[in-house]
Amino acid sequence: MGTGESKRLAIILLILWGVASFVWVNSCISADTSGATEECLECHISLNPGLVASWQKSQHAQLSPQEALQKTGLELKVSGRRIPEDLTKNVVGCAECHTMNAEKHKDTFEHNGHAVHIVVTPTDCATCHPVEADQYTKNLMSFAYGNLVNNPTYQGLILSINGGYVFDQMNLSIKAPNDETNADSCLFCHGTSVEVKGVASRETEDYGELEFPVLSGWPNQGVGRLNPDGSKGSCSACHTRHQFSIEVARKPYTCSECHKGPDVPAYKVYQVSKHGNIFSSVGNKGWNFKSVPWVIGKDFTAPTCATCHISLLTGEEGNVVVERTHQINNRIPWRIFGLIYAHPHPKAPDTTVIKNKDGLFLPTALTGERAVGYLIDAKEQEKRRLTMQGICLSCHGREWVDGHWSRFENTIGTTNESTLTATQMMLTIWDKGFAEGLPQKGNLFDESVERRWANIWLLYANHIRLSSAMCGGDYGVFDRGRYFMTGKIQEIKDWLDLRLKINQ
Amino acid sequence: MGTGESKRLAIILLILWGVASFVWVNSCISADTSGATEECLECHISLNPGLVASWQKSQHAQLSPQEALQKTGLELKVSGRRIPEDLTKNVVGCAECHTMNAEKHKDTFEHNGHAVHIVVTPTDCATCHPVEADQYTKNLMSFAYGNLVNNPTYQGLILSINGGYVFDQMNLSIKAPNDETNADSCLFCHGTSVEVKGVASRETEDYGELEFPVLSGWPNQGVGRLNPDGSKGSCSACHTRHQFSIEVARKPYTCSECHKGPDVPAYKVYQVSKHGNIFSSVGNKGWNFKSVPWVIGKDFTAPTCATCHISLLTGEEGNVVVERTHQINNRIPWRIFGLIYAHPHPKAPDTTVIKNKDGLFLPTALTGERAVGYLIDAKEQEKRRLTMQGICLSCHGREWVDGHWSRFENTIGTTNESTLTATQMMLTIWDKGFAEGLPQKGNLFDESVERRWANIWLLYANHIRLSSAMCGGDYGVFDRGRYFMTGKIQEIKDWLDLRLKINQ
Amino acid sequence: MGTGESKRLAIILLILWGVASFVWVNSCISADTSGATEECLECHISLNPGLVASWQKSQHAQLSPQEALQKTGLELKVSGRRIPEDLTKNVVGCAECHTMNAEKHKDTFEHNGHAVHIVVTPTDCATCHPVEADQYTKNLMSFAYGNLVNNPTYQGLILSINGGYVFDQMNLSIKAPNDETNADSCLFCHGTSVEVKGVASRETEDYGELEFPVLSGWPNQGVGRLNPDGSKGSCSACHTRHQFSIEVARKPYTCSECHKGPDVPAYKVYQVSKHGNIFSSVGNKGWNFKSVPWVIGKDFTAPTCATCHISLLTGEEGNVVVERTHQINNRIPWRIFGLIYAHPHPKAPDTTVIKNKDGLFLPTALTGERAVGYLIDAKEQEKRRLTMQGICLSCHGREWVDGHWSRFENTIGTTNESTLTATQMMLTIWDKGFAEGLPQKGNLFDESVERRWANIWLLYANHIRLSSAMCGGDYGVFDRGRYFMTGKIQEIKDWLDLRLKINQ
Repeated sequence: MGTGESKRLAIILLILWGVASFVWVNSCISADTSGATEECLECHISLNPGLVASWQKSQHAQLSPQEALQKTGLELKVSGRRIPEDLTKNVVGCAECHTMNAEKHKDTFEHNGHAVHIVVTPTDCATCHPVEADQYTKNLMSFAYGNLVNNPTYQGLILSINGGYVFDQMNLSIKAPNDETNADSCLFCHGTSVEVKGVASRETEDYGELEFPVLSGWPNQGVGRLNPDGSKGSCSACHTRHQFSIEVARKPYTCSECHKGPDVPAYKVYQVSKHGNIFSSVGNKGWNFKSVPWVIGKDFTAPTCATCHISLLTGEEGNVVVERTHQINNRIPWRIFGLIYAHPHPKAPDTTVIKNKDGLFLPTALTGERAVGYLIDAKEQEKRRLTMQGICLSCHGREWVDGHWSRFENTIGTTNESTLTATQMMLTIWDKGFAEGLPQKGNLFDESVERRWANIWLLYANHIRLSSAMCGGDYGVFDRGRYFMTGKIQEIKDWLDLRLKINQ
Repeated sequence: MGTGESKRLAIILLILWGVASFVWVNSCISADTSGATEECLECHISLNPGLVASWQKSQHAQLSPQEALQKTGLELKVSGRRIPEDLTKNVVGCAECHTMNAEKHKDTFEHNGHAVHIVVTPTDCATCHPVEADQYTKNLMSFAYGNLVNNPTYQGLILSINGGYVFDQMNLSIKAPNDETNADSCLFCHGTSVEVKGVASRETEDYGELEFPVLSGWPNQGVGRLNPDGSKGSCSACHTRHQFSIEVARKPYTCSECHKGPDVPAYKVYQVSKHGNIFSSVGNKGWNFKSVPWVIGKDFTAPTCATCHISLLTGEEGNVVVERTHQINNRIPWRIFGLIYAHPHPKAPDTTVIKNKDGLFLPTALTGERAVGYLIDAKEQEKRRLTMQGICLSCHGREWVDGHWSRFENTIGTTNESTLTATQMMLTIWDKGFAEGLPQKGNLFDESVERRWANIWLLYANHIRLSSAMCGGDYGVFDRGRYFMTGKIQEIKDWLDLRLKINQ
Repeated sequence: MGTGESKRLAIILLILWGVASFVWVNSCISADTSGATEECLECHISLNPGLVASWQKSQHAQLSPQEALQKTGLELKVSGRRIPEDLTKNVVGCAECHTMNAEKHKDTFEHNGHAVHIVVTPTDCATCHPVEADQYTKNLMSFAYGNLVNNPTYQGLILSINGGYVFDQMNLSIKAPNDETNADSCLFCHGTSVEVKGVASRETEDYGELEFPVLSGWPNQGVGRLNPDGSKGSCSACHTRHQFSIEVARKPYTCSECHKGPDVPAYKVYQVSKHGNIFSSVGNKGWNFKSVPWVIGKDFTAPTCATCHISLLTGEEGNVVVERTHQINNRIPWRIFGLIYAHPHPKAPDTTVIKNKDGLFLPTALTGERAVGYLIDAKEQEKRRLTMQGICLSCHGREWVDGHWSRFENTIGTTNESTLTATQMMLTIWDKGFAEGLPQKGNLFDESVERRWANIWLLYANHIRLSSAMCGGDYGVFDRGRYFMTGKIQEIKDWLDLRLKINQ
């Protein structure tokens, strides 16, 4: 066969391939965009081409709810069984979400004949995904705003971190941070309170002057965002707009957006674990991050964050290893970061109700005693532990899993003990008046030695526990682990000794 | 159809595929390597196989300038219109670059009949890429060597970081670092001064003893490198040798080479941002990192560093959203890292001319007042702000973009205020003689409390501002963010209080 | 041609492709699993589906030793020439490894008619891979357990890091850490001692009550693990179970499991180096991480950790650039982390024999003098340097390589000098009794100022040297580099000055 012939044949093959692909792709997309969405696209396809292109790649743009509902049983992705008739035939476009529940939305405004709102909320998403939205209301994350902002002890922490320090006459005082600072800081992940503050008009290219609502706390995609329709949270925190790809939500990069910093270095620990290594080394080929259910061994051979904490997992024969959950805490027996001591998970997602024996709004006393009435009991812990271990056992033997968990729970004990030691030194420091804390009713976080104490539980103990939980190795020792925790204990002691000596 | 038949057919298909590919690939490569480059390759293909293989994968190895010039308009990649006739027909190989402008190069040496130089410079690259080389001369980066090394205040910082500390008779003194230390440290990114220091001969396998120039500051690919032909910078800082792939330059890993450390953690912030998440999660499939122009939505759906700071971006219809720039600062209204206070960008890339009201070579006074004459005015800032926001608007609505920028510029204000508070404490400390600083004409960076002060603006304020600029969330709080900035303010106060008490 | 026809043709093509693939895959797998392994799989395929699926993707599951042995010369992967006859015909499955050398294994137990052991060891792997297992016995890593745990000086360090601090009557004391803490901490990477501690019975789904050995220090995959058969190490530390993919071992993520923390940030430095950038930017396409030998330029154009430290590298003509080694240190002239001063590599992998001039079990005196008798000499260093430089030269010219190495060895000198300065201050501090160290025979690591000293060599000097070795730029300055090292020197001086003043 001559070069010319082979070239011709190659060209024919390539053309056939193209035609076949075209036919196949077309046969997949049968539903249309709604008229309302078409109207949106008319302008916004050129105003925001990246946004529209992202949406076009989404399942939302390719399937109508009617088509999506054909997936049932373990393959089900749309949990709503009572989707309004008029929404089922078209793909899910701009208008479908941004005009949904218009009357409930304080941010709704008239926009070229449509009652549009800017902020799409879990209640809007619940139209098609009610089970997930409902589970999420039981997730600690959905209360992330109030659990932080409404806790008197943590208000002192926020002030000491975000506040503006003023040095005057040899004194240091703190003025309250403004809303933009808080939105850029803690509330970036915890969620802001999005409120309508007024209306502003703006000149537009095609429609002249138009009016838009002015929102406080916007933009924000925090997990506990207070929405203008009264709901809590933001699905797009993890289901990244506007592709809403399950692949993105299942990859650890999504979790890293909020769980990477030294206060909660889950992603960093994952990265250097065996699991993270396998994901990084071979997760990019042959793995299926989109299939539902997610089949162990077939779709992946090492877990990501979502695998253990959220996803529906089955074996190849369709046997369910663990149910999907957007509540998350039902797989977690211990709360290992964010508070002074690790402790059994709180019973309710709203933790502002919790009070310790000393009247502080904390799940443990400063000296570690648990506010047991507000926390799950040993039986519930065991149930959750077994759920999680069921996932471990998919790839590890019983000895392995037991050894791992025993070591992890040993770490919970030893890090709590170290925190207690540091706290005992702080109590002495406050008692002797070297710093102003509990007895003086001072802020517990606004002096240098207090911040050293906070480092111990807010940074180092978290590193050690997360490392222990996920086999991070070095992260539990040198990367803000035990080396740093013990170093800081030595430092507080050194600080105390010096004050004792000087004040003799 | 039997297994044998299907196997035969499969084999035929595979062969056809291979032939077609071969024909196609061959039809793409028509230009030849020059005779001079062939001579280079004769030895170097076995001496440095990795280097040659890398080049073979480059566009340089596959297209002659003549062919490349066929791309025009928005697709243009070779901006030179007056490329010397003798260079246009062959692909761009070893000899084309390494013998270019031989007479201007002090590092030119005789090498088997050719006048070869080791260091290829922006002036050499400008033969085909003059627009980019010219823009780069207006880029602050091209002056990165002198702006650091020739600034008297920063000389004190370099000495305090790179110098050798000597402890003797209870005193600590610093001896100047040697050139190799500086080249391995600050100048690794800022660029070294590459000078010919002599000639050395060396035994070679095929040609016996040969002579080569001895270069100081070599190897180096810093952005402000002083080259032996008098030019500044190194294109290969970002256009990584010898593939010079636009894909590499457009990926954030390139920027991370210099913008990852805690003095300028841009890459780390990007990684944990939504943008970074999308890039990591889905940027590896379906995205086109090579197309010129770079079409929003079609080629990518989330930006990398290059997208916002450098690349030519268009919509699908070819409408230009932003022009390509190698000047970079024309999209940036604020300079948010590297100096004591964030401030409007300097007018000229050579910042050694800037003097503050106190005579220090800094764009602001220690107490924050700006050296306004040297900095761009509000109008130029607004122009740059609008250029950048034009990119944001490709994927985000106006409310989103305005809210984001308002928050970012609020952060510039609050971090400057915090820096001022810390500086006021330092001025007190110097004033009281607890450390030797301004009034004593001492080095501002060589004592422990001074280093704490430097941490505040050189590390923490930068983290907060970069996090605010790119939605890094936690990086603005716990990862050397506000938590650390306020902690260090408390620590300086603690340090001062102790000295006050002891010296009563 | 109509759409219907093209569709039909496309379908035919797709079917043919599928059939061809099936035939091809089948022709690759000819060996069967052994009967014993089939028995294992019967239960474990549903008990541990992820584990089994991982193994099914391995070369072990696809080739029998007999087939694998057909690869010879440079392509050889199975170095064993005397594999027992009965093992050569079947693929390498559960039973082949987990019943290997049953009699030598203290962890062997009767399991449904088979003498099974849990821990597969280098001695087991040596059945087919004896050369690699033998080389590994000369690798410092294989002694990582004893070199740490049996060194009296380092015992003090472990106690100070992992121990439980108790604050009582204004005193801080340390109680010894329990075994689980050590296993979760230092020994996670160094390796635990895995010992049989008893037997426990457990109810199983299919076989009722079964007995299993109880192991201490399990799970663990540390590089120096003490195994129940008396061997040292764990091949799966790098050759990740149960896929044992050479691709995983060659990717830098594997090394990051132990070499990422601030005590040895090799991976972090690699990430921001040019090499790391190229790997991240283009390493995911067109590179071949599986081919043996690993051909420079053809299989990769930038090195990973394995490239320089372990792999067999050749040019395209099969010329060997460097031999494969699992000893590793034969390519490394200097030991640049983990000890107080950088020094020539120790002669023997067991470093517990080393004693310095002052009788401490360290390769240098506290003041830097080397215990030369235990360390390789200049000639051996030069041999190793040339081996490594041979790899550098594959992609870099001689001037480049010489300049780089000169700068690296300059850094070894300057970081040792800075460490000496810090140590001289510590000797003064101990001498004056401000802390209890050498003269008092106290723990060198349990007081705050001592920990500051440890930071200098255990964290910062390592960062600087690793950055210098691999062109990390910023990591040698601001990311726990020179900026931090000099800052800590200033801090120790500040600490000393204050004590001197107070104790006047």
